[in-house]
Amino acid sequence: MVIFGVTGDLARRKLMPAIYDLANRGLLPAGFALVGFARRDWADEDFAGIVHDAVRTHARTPFREDVWRELAKGFRFVQGTFDDDDAFARLSAALTALDEERGTDGNHAFYLSVPPDSFPVVCDQLKRSELAKPRDGRWRRVVIEKPFGHDLDSAQKLNAVVNSVFPEQSVFRIDHYLGKETVQNILALRFANQLFDPVWSAHYIDHVQITMAEDIGLGGRAGYYDGIGAARDVIQNHLLQLLALVAMEEPVSFAPAELQSEKIKVLSATRNILPLEENSARGQYGAGWQGNEKVCGLLEEEGFAKDSTTETYAAIALEVDTRRWAGVPFYLRTGKRLGRRVTEIALVFKRAPHLPFDSTMTTELGQNALVIRVQPDEGVTLRFGSKVPGSSMEVRDVNMDFSYGEAFTVSSPEAYERLILDMLLGEPSLFPVNAEVELSWQILDPVLQAWAKKGRPETYESGTWGPHSADEMMARTGRSWRRP
Amino acid sequence: MVIFGVTGDLARRKLMPAIYDLANRGLLPAGFALVGFARRDWADEDFAGIVHDAVRTHARTPFREDVWRELAKGFRFVQGTFDDDDAFARLSAALTALDEERGTDGNHAFYLSVPPDSFPVVCDQLKRSELAKPRDGRWRRVVIEKPFGHDLDSAQKLNAVVNSVFPEQSVFRIDHYLGKETVQNILALRFANQLFDPVWSAHYIDHVQITMAEDIGLGGRAGYYDGIGAARDVIQNHLLQLLALVAMEEPVSFAPAELQSEKIKVLSATRNILPLEENSARGQYGAGWQGNEKVCGLLEEEGFAKDSTTETYAAIALEVDTRRWAGVPFYLRTGKRLGRRVTEIALVFKRAPHLPFDSTMTTELGQNALVIRVQPDEGVTLRFGSKVPGSSMEVRDVNMDFSYGEAFTVSSPEAYERLILDMLLGEPSLFPVNAEVELSWQILDPVLQAWAKKGRPETYESGTWGPHSADEMMARTGRSWRRP
Repeated sequence: MVIFGVTGDLARRKLMPAIYDLANRGLLPAGFALVGFARRDWADEDFAGIVHDAVRTHARTPFREDVWRELAKGFRFVQGTFDDDDAFARLSAALTALDEERGTDGNHAFYLSVPPDSFPVVCDQLKRSELAKPRDGRWRRVVIEKPFGHDLDSAQKLNAVVNSVFPEQSVFRIDHYLGKETVQNILALRFANQLFDPVWSAHYIDHVQITMAEDIGLGGRAGYYDGIGAARDVIQNHLLQLLALVAMEEPVSFAPAELQSEKIKVLSATRNILPLEENSARGQYGAGWQGNEKVCGLLEEEGFAKDSTTETYAAIALEVDTRRWAGVPFYLRTGKRLGRRVTEIALVFKRAPHLPFDSTMTTELGQNALVIRVQPDEGVTLRFGSKVPGSSMEVRDVNMDFSYGEAFTVSSPEAYERLILDMLLGEPSLFPVNAEVELSWQILDPVLQAWAKKGRPETYESGTWGPHSADEMMARTGRSWRRP
Repeated sequence: MVIFGVTGDLARRKLMPAIYDLANRGLLPAGFALVGFARRDWADEDFAGIVHDAVRTHARTPFREDVWRELAKGFRFVQGTFDDDDAFARLSAALTALDEERGTDGNHAFYLSVPPDSFPVVCDQLKRSELAKPRDGRWRRVVIEKPFGHDLDSAQKLNAVVNSVFPEQSVFRIDHYLGKETVQNILALRFANQLFDPVWSAHYIDHVQITMAEDIGLGGRAGYYDGIGAARDVIQNHLLQLLALVAMEEPVSFAPAELQSEKIKVLSATRNILPLEENSARGQYGAGWQGNEKVCGLLEEEGFAKDSTTETYAAIALEVDTRRWAGVPFYLRTGKRLGRRVTEIALVFKRAPHLPFDSTMTTELGQNALVIRVQPDEGVTLRFGSKVPGSSMEVRDVNMDFSYGEAFTVSSPEAYERLILDMLLGEPSLFPVNAEVELSWQILDPVLQAWAKKGRPETYESGTWGPHSADEMMARTGRSWRRP
């Protein structure tokens, strides 16, 4: 596996530790080799030292000297820039040598941990140098990270570039949310149980809220984030993928083609609720308090344009035009510097059609909700009405909890462990195909265009739950956002 | 309130503490007076001393001297036997005096904490002495405890005796299970929520198990229990009432008449599954281990006939012939000296109609279950299948829990507090009417008759979960009892 951009944050924090953890769990073939490619003037030993530090700091599983020593034998570093033909020749030589030395059998994966504007040049080089060309029945795969473009048009162009070098079945797009246990558990919850499916529809569900809230700000990330914003960064990929898993019909099996076909089907049926102005909201964080710490607004963060209109909060309202979901709004929201770090999917039920209680007994009764807690406290919560102890029939909301961490003593693998392993095994279930990416842009593009016309996003105070316009968007239909 | 049989266990352990707790919670009128009636040669002060000890030992709420002193002012004791006309004249005089001294307003309740064979004589005396006769628009009520007869015929006779003195609306039959918060919560769970009703039917439920298991034996209770047995003691009242609450349709409101009418309707539709020999089981505990303690069998317990055929375990299978429930067996079981003390209602769901998983991935997946935990650990559990962390789509059963004790900081009132208060307020919702009692006997009688022809019940080892025949009864349909 070759990592381009191996000096970056992602490689150090996620990729290197995941590779070690896989090795530690005995899931990597003995001959596995890792080649770093970057501009720095490193020798193989320098690179191994960097990986070592990353593993020591970020690996999930305990450090075992023998596993490390065996793994590190396959580390190589190739110094170069993406426009340097010689560097790719050296890379090619390194791979050929490794194939012999390590017996890696000639299967090569290229991990593009680089900004999207470098995709064309790297792809071209891989083509030109024939590194992308499979030989003797061996495979070549490419792994790419978001953003997959910044709108439908750029996504199509980007994909054309990638597909001109790698056929679609060799392209693995990382949406690390799909590697999370709790996200995969959506499928188990829905399709392994008798209990949930009968109420999983517009007959019983009032609306769905999909939230990815972060408490951190964007200090140090201007280069990636300014001009991109919350909707492109999170809704286009993570949240729409979660929507697809929640709303799709049962696949014939979990074979990749079957699963993708259901996701594509449901994304094809997903539309913005109109008018867009009333059914979307965006905001940009101002100064405020995050816990005990006073924090600055986005415009004061280093690297951001002083007149940046990049949104750090985005909310949209969608409907899924299928027999199962017609009439049920799906509210998607994400933001930085919000009250708490939490990702969850909440299916909020209608009230019971009739309450045979005195009306004074049900004032504290809300709507039932099934909440899939994606992170950080992974699990499932069911909110329902229960009798308050005492002589009257007063009912009040209570919670029933399932905690993934308490139920299973084995700690869950990191998303990247699962995704890298699946990629090496050629198991594409958890990777969005191009059709999904393009459908997601198709959903998001009109919102982005409407926003672009409207100038600055509303400022919200750091540490709160986003702009007023987001609350108003819900209030218009008598609903409100959860405060998770 | 007059208690007949005030020297008994029930009065000391439950009634006196409940009265104090009600007073402590400010729920008794200031003039409330308690009159004890029994054979013992006690003065009012002796009686007050007994109540004091009972309250100190068994009350739920803290002892408060001022509450106690105020309450104790209304304590009187009348010495006498049930066939002593003079004693009832003294009782009458005591009540008249209290009405004046305490301003009790002439409303009298008679609590018959006496064996059923004393009902006729006490009722006759209350009639003869005109104590049962309401005057000046004041009420007279009678409270009776199980057993309400030992079969349909005797229940009808008993009821005729009671009703010849008190009209049906003045008769309050105690089924203390109906006073439990968790039992009343069945109604809240079913009718305050959108989530449960849609799956509350034969479409989704495979069967229902209602269990009341006790770990204690019957030492010291031969006088009450020998010749009665587990089915009459528990199934006829508690478990059939639980069945009624779980299986009934939604009442128009929780007005007593509406609730009773739904319970009567569902009990009228409840039938034994035939043949009875294959769909019932009974057992009698033999020696064994209860935890670390070696315990004797029923036949060695003091007071039991050495050839007693009284069952200490009973299980029956019923079906409810309604559109909602047709085809769903309801399994009711109860027993002494079982593995653990637990009362629960488990709705066991069918398996999902189709599992789009590899069959090797679902071997650890059972059936979904919604379990209403009545005691001791009050709450609700939902069992469902969840993904096991790791690379495969393996699913396994996990539990989601709601604990009544954790959700509500106020401790739940004791069943007797609720029931005595309701009786004083003339609120009959939680008291089975005669029609329910008779319908329950109608269900149980054929089983008891079939058992009577079969001689001795099967012996089961103390500390186990009952006789083999009970397991076989379930195994015949491919099911099994829960091990709660």
